[in-house]
Amino acid sequence: MKHEDSSWSCYQLSLYQHPTSRVGVCKQEILQKKNAVLVDGVILNGPIMDSKAGEKLVEEACKIIMEEVVQKADDVTEKVCEWQAPEKLKQILDLEMRDTGESHQKILQLCRDVIKYSVKTNHPRFFNQLYAGIDYYSLVARFITEALNPSVYTYEVSPVFLLVEEAVIKKMIEFIGWEEGDGIFNPGGSVSNMYAMNLARYKFCPEIKEKGLSGLPRLVLFASEECHYSMKKAASFLGIGTENVYFIKTDERGKMIPEELEKQVQRARKEASWGGSALISRKHRRLLHGIHRADSVAWNPHKMLLAGIQCCALLVKDNSGLLKKCYSAEAAYLFQQDKFYDVSYDTGDKSIQCSRRPDAFKFWLMWKALGTTGLEERVNRALALARYLVEEIKKREGFQLILEPEYANVCFWYIPPSLRKMEDGPEFWQKLHQVAPIIKERMMKKGSMMLGYQPHWGKVNFFRQVVISPQVSREDMDFLLDEIELLAKDL
Amino acid sequence: MKHEDSSWSCYQLSLYQHPTSRVGVCKQEILQKKNAVLVDGVILNGPIMDSKAGEKLVEEACKIIMEEVVQKADDVTEKVCEWQAPEKLKQILDLEMRDTGESHQKILQLCRDVIKYSVKTNHPRFFNQLYAGIDYYSLVARFITEALNPSVYTYEVSPVFLLVEEAVIKKMIEFIGWEEGDGIFNPGGSVSNMYAMNLARYKFCPEIKEKGLSGLPRLVLFASEECHYSMKKAASFLGIGTENVYFIKTDERGKMIPEELEKQVQRARKEASWGGSALISRKHRRLLHGIHRADSVAWNPHKMLLAGIQCCALLVKDNSGLLKKCYSAEAAYLFQQDKFYDVSYDTGDKSIQCSRRPDAFKFWLMWKALGTTGLEERVNRALALARYLVEEIKKREGFQLILEPEYANVCFWYIPPSLRKMEDGPEFWQKLHQVAPIIKERMMKKGSMMLGYQPHWGKVNFFRQVVISPQVSREDMDFLLDEIELLAKDL
Repeated sequence: MKHEDSSWSCYQLSLYQHPTSRVGVCKQEILQKKNAVLVDGVILNGPIMDSKAGEKLVEEACKIIMEEVVQKADDVTEKVCEWQAPEKLKQILDLEMRDTGESHQKILQLCRDVIKYSVKTNHPRFFNQLYAGIDYYSLVARFITEALNPSVYTYEVSPVFLLVEEAVIKKMIEFIGWEEGDGIFNPGGSVSNMYAMNLARYKFCPEIKEKGLSGLPRLVLFASEECHYSMKKAASFLGIGTENVYFIKTDERGKMIPEELEKQVQRARKEASWGGSALISRKHRRLLHGIHRADSVAWNPHKMLLAGIQCCALLVKDNSGLLKKCYSAEAAYLFQQDKFYDVSYDTGDKSIQCSRRPDAFKFWLMWKALGTTGLEERVNRALALARYLVEEIKKREGFQLILEPEYANVCFWYIPPSLRKMEDGPEFWQKLHQVAPIIKERMMKKGSMMLGYQPHWGKVNFFRQVVISPQVSREDMDFLLDEIELLAKDL
Repeated sequence: MKHEDSSWSCYQLSLYQHPTSRVGVCKQEILQKKNAVLVDGVILNGPIMDSKAGEKLVEEACKIIMEEVVQKADDVTEKVCEWQAPEKLKQILDLEMRDTGESHQKILQLCRDVIKYSVKTNHPRFFNQLYAGIDYYSLVARFITEALNPSVYTYEVSPVFLLVEEAVIKKMIEFIGWEEGDGIFNPGGSVSNMYAMNLARYKFCPEIKEKGLSGLPRLVLFASEECHYSMKKAASFLGIGTENVYFIKTDERGKMIPEELEKQVQRARKEASWGGSALISRKHRRLLHGIHRADSVAWNPHKMLLAGIQCCALLVKDNSGLLKKCYSAEAAYLFQQDKFYDVSYDTGDKSIQCSRRPDAFKFWLMWKALGTTGLEERVNRALALARYLVEEIKKREGFQLILEPEYANVCFWYIPPSLRKMEDGPEFWQKLHQVAPIIKERMMKKGSMMLGYQPHWGKVNFFRQVVISPQVSREDMDFLLDEIELLAKDL
């Protein structure tokens, strides 16, 4: 039984099509019906939405999404991006929100434009970030959660997703090699890093939760000089201060040198949110040898495992309830203790958030569908593709590897023809520094692929290629190198 | 042109259906083809995914979502929840992730079960949290972003969504009544509160970013004693300490008493994340009179405006780049300064996150479709429905309003028949305290509706009804009261 009555159709339509012009007329009609209730100028009978029109819109949009995004995800003849400069793109998109709503036809056209001018991160030749490709299971899970619109804090409002999170965290802990532990999914690895830093502080100085840092001796933090920038953000956010972060020297691979650390402290925590997915691979988990000795691990299945942004867990070895003790604020309106079920399932108070998305679910559905073997195969394949690319780079004139990769990031320079005979010296490096940005601009405007560049380790701009997606094949690796040569042939 | 070749079909299938048993055979077949490349035991030609099977799965899942979630969203004969105790639900759902993946048929059945046992937050009789109902435009936007899988940090990877966020923030600032400002969408109002608290600290003590709080005089925070629990979480997270939060007395409506505050400080910041949506209504924006005098506002369109979890903006009056100065960490690999476009569009460094979802987009699409008038109508209707409910509560025996609501939360006791003739005294209140949990348990097990309860202001457990969804009508308000009477008739 729907809350529907043919006498409402005019009023309902009016909201969607002519919100101001027709309401008056319809109100008159409606008020003549029996039981009509008008409060403060608003008619309260029946819902105000035309659900049939809404459902039709969702169906039509799903069709567009299937055709324009999902079905094109493996089509290399499509552009990776349809580049437009910001001011131009503002003109193309009608961004202004007005008093009166737009028609469904206009809304569907806007959806098409949004898709058209967005970067296709699913494209086999999108290598620009640490996420790429499409996982159909994760996508299905994301559609389900968007439709159900849950928030994960109490069992009563999120029974399935809380149990799923528990199961996924348990399994992730098993892969790290801990015998027990706890964990929580967060909006991103940066937030996981903040959680971990704050948990460590709480563990050793629990009084800071109530007393704060003021007046206390200086707290310092030891981190690899190659650590993610979120460590600095966290240090400032948590009141530690970025100057109190001691960066530990790393070797030529960017790994913290243990002797350097031991000179200064006995222990330090480890981070692993991009490489965490190697744990899934029996072949490659040795890359994370010793990870079980860490007290906390940030693991982002939204990267190499394609779970979709965002899907990030912080896992802690402690099983004494540290997460809850550290973060609880015991809001009476959510975490009532006189509920009729076991309230230990109300895990929301472990989080710094109130509303929280069920990000574990998409990882769980993927894992169910592919099995550990399927996830493992993806990791193995991505690393094998990276290895293939490295060997090709070594064979080709003009390409120079920065260092042998251990994981799926391949860093290299492309030295264009005009620079190949130049003498090594400041002028050469200065010119080479300008090459990657020019090639990047050309590839963006052409839309053929996307690849990041950056300066680092005192080295001038180099390309950073990341292999993730199972849509990617050897042919794409060859294309990548051919395309760089093509884009830079006049340089 | 797809990366496809009929010779791959066997290998592709194998991954999805029998990951371990058939790969060996297929490898042999594939290696006999020309150009086959095998690295480290992995064949690199062609993609490893069967995209056709994946697309079919997505289509079938969309059909289930349409039928089981979207089309049932306005059907009041459906249950709000299909209650199962945690241990029982674990048995029903096959949560274990195994080495071998499950078939598509099994995955679709799991999807059905996930939907079946999840709480229907879209149901017209879900009144349990500050979100409810379905907005079809927002849902379309969320499906689009899940399919495109963007992360909002740089213009090059998220051109459309960065411009959309800019446009939405500009519009929200206009509604607050500021002449200029800045803002950012965050994963939740709690995180917005942390941002705001940290920004205030940075504005007056910028050196804390580098130096930290240690050794500094004590910082104190003034907050309403009725403030959201995230303020305490934030105080501990930021290193201020919960004991340094001074809670200011409130009046009987829970509003901070200005004289109480002025006794202690000259100024304090204001929060408004649940009520923010009243700004959209010309009729009700007087509820937030004076909000333009605040330095920062946290506004959550995922509540009253139905934008879907999560959709939360922190808006700041400052337009001198405070957000960026406070949060920037200048990661060279993301925020290169030698890009070919205006890098002021790379707004990611304003955030404490690295990956960030385009939550502004769903709000924007809704706003485009409904117009300001359509959003306003929703707010007006929700408040009129709450008013109707209040008047009905006053008329009915056994119902007692806690206080006259100003917004869409209606707090009331239900005094069951057996307590109506009891004398006022500790025993009465003790018994009444137990009534709401029993009614809640019965409604959950029946699945007829969901409504929260809590003790507060020294008052025993009372119901807290929240009206949000445009699917809700007068009939649901009547049902709510009838149902409570029915569930409690023997109490």
